Amino acid sequence: MTNQKSTNENQTQENAWQIGTRTLPPPAGASDAMCTSIAETPQPDPAFMQIEPQSEAEWLAVIAQFDAGKVDAVQALSEQLSVSYEQKQIEGINIYHLTPAEVDPRHEDHLFVYVHGGAFVLNGGEAGLAEPILIAHRAKMRVLSIDYRMPPKYPTPAGRDDVVTVYQHLLKEQAAKSMALGGTSGGGNLVMATVQRLIELGLDVPGALYLGTPGTDMSKTGDSWYTNDGIDRLLATYDGFLEAASRLYAGGRDLKDPLVSPHYGKVEGFPPTFLVTGTRDMLLSNTARTHIKLRQAGVVADILVYDGTSHGDYIVVMDSPESYHAFAELNAFLLRYLE
Amino acid sequence: MTNQKSTNENQTQENAWQIGTRTLPPPAGASDAMCTSIAETPQPDPAFMQIEPQSEAEWLAVIAQFDAGKVDAVQALSEQLSVSYEQKQIEGINIYHLTPAEVDPRHEDHLFVYVHGGAFVLNGGEAGLAEPILIAHRAKMRVLSIDYRMPPKYPTPAGRDDVVTVYQHLLKEQAAKSMALGGTSGGGNLVMATVQRLIELGLDVPGALYLGTPGTDMSKTGDSWYTNDGIDRLLATYDGFLEAASRLYAGGRDLKDPLVSPHYGKVEGFPPTFLVTGTRDMLLSNTARTHIKLRQAGVVADILVYDGTSHGDYIVVMDSPESYHAFAELNAFLLRYLE
Repeated sequence: MTNQKSTNENQTQENAWQIGTRTLPPPAGASDAMCTSIAETPQPDPAFMQIEPQSEAEWLAVIAQFDAGKVDAVQALSEQLSVSYEQKQIEGINIYHLTPAEVDPRHEDHLFVYVHGGAFVLNGGEAGLAEPILIAHRAKMRVLSIDYRMPPKYPTPAGRDDVVTVYQHLLKEQAAKSMALGGTSGGGNLVMATVQRLIELGLDVPGALYLGTPGTDMSKTGDSWYTNDGIDRLLATYDGFLEAASRLYAGGRDLKDPLVSPHYGKVEGFPPTFLVTGTRDMLLSNTARTHIKLRQAGVVADILVYDGTSHGDYIVVMDSPESYHAFAELNAFLLRYLE
Repeated sequence: MTNQKSTNENQTQENAWQIGTRTLPPPAGASDAMCTSIAETPQPDPAFMQIEPQSEAEWLAVIAQFDAGKVDAVQALSEQLSVSYEQKQIEGINIYHLTPAEVDPRHEDHLFVYVHGGAFVLNGGEAGLAEPILIAHRAKMRVLSIDYRMPPKYPTPAGRDDVVTVYQHLLKEQAAKSMALGGTSGGGNLVMATVQRLIELGLDVPGALYLGTPGTDMSKTGDSWYTNDGIDRLLATYDGFLEAASRLYAGGRDLKDPLVSPHYGKVEGFPPTFLVTGTRDMLLSNTARTHIKLRQAGVVADILVYDGTSHGDYIVVMDSPESYHAFAELNAFLLRYLE
């Protein structure tokens, strides 16, 4: 809900339950494709995420390790789905124009402005283009993906400022309500922070938002950080890498500062927002809480929760019914709200 | 998703993960009122639910034990909220007319037809009136609650048939689209099964449905039966009482028979449907899966997920912001879709 007061903070340390061991079969409520993928995945190992780089050099090495192979995968996906992309600059910020083989006439005047995820440090450059390729292909619309500045060199609000700068530039030739702004995970965080900034600046907000399993609260507040610890096959755990990356992004700010966790900022005046998560998602609580907060502020907001899926599984298992359904729903939402 | 095929069934037995112990603090992402209530609750003890009555007499004893004190609580709530109720019969079926102190003029011609929950065996008679009193009070509308036949004497489809009979009777004087049909838990199951039957019979469906954390799939399929085992403070676990009650209700039918688990039946032609669940809800997966299935069939369906809340916590902690918000959203939904 809207207020996190000291009562809750204190209770976090007391009254905790010790949850015993349990056996978790692959999710039979998911589609065959999703269930099979999960059944074939090694069990998430929280120890694997106990990475806390101590210097800029160590961070860059870890980032390179996580991002290895992604550009090749992106190029292959681009060919497979016939989505071409081109690198450009807007006011000194690196961006990519993505063009599908065919543009839906209903999207002729629309633009999807995409903000990639990756815990605020990963997926820079071409490595961040997998989901925007999927969106361009499935929604048959043009996408502009922003390669915003990231830590270790640039903590918040550098990335947000880049998104604002590009958006403001686009406004010169593209009506606000004809643009969608969206992204997954850390990208969802930046989308929310960007819209808060646009409202502060008195600028027109986009026609619709997409928050895919958004990292809108990087403090360890949402319940699913605990309940899905060791269960989310992508994130595995908050402790270690995710917390370290969040603190690096925060650059000394409190993790509940809206520039780090925009869930704590204002959402009045937000455009219609589409959210996606899963029952095994460590960001299930983030997504659900932000959805409720938007609804409480009178914002049109739709959430989809896919059974048995972890953080971003709708991208990971892109040939699953869940993935097709999520992007079809996103597209229907855009067609409904973009002008 | 829509199809559960044998692949998933087989995988359920293999590739299971052993999830280790973990510490679960009270949910800081919930409201203070909700978080405090949860912090003050003893940790759910799955052993407490290891009840499997073996005879009709044993079932009746267990039901009496679970329902003890509920009528007193219902009468106190009725006085506190100034909602009066009157017992009547419709075609031999016991029903209750609930009338709030004030009816919203917008609801003047509306009727909420309520189907109580309770694992298909509990909450018979006045014991089932807590939630309909809340609905009558908060939505300021008239409610008719159906005291349908239940096991151990009457397995499915007796209860559903009672709901259909009452609804058909009401149709003589009340337009279908002016009625909402809804309930929580087992009540959500019966609502779904009832609408499937109405469509089979070619009858007009209600104007809107309410499925509160619905027991739409009583087989142990949804992922949250596992992930929230020992975490849902109301249900605690599937194994034991819940499974036994489901099998009693099934009366020899397979647990995936749509008369037991209407999630596996058709949903084409369903009216707009409002669903509520929570991240600790053992029926999170049920609710999320049914929501997605409805959307896939082109049905208008909205889901709300409250952080840290267990099965039915929006009724249990009725003075929480979550509870007020859930019923306010339900009411807004009804005002939008009832005619």
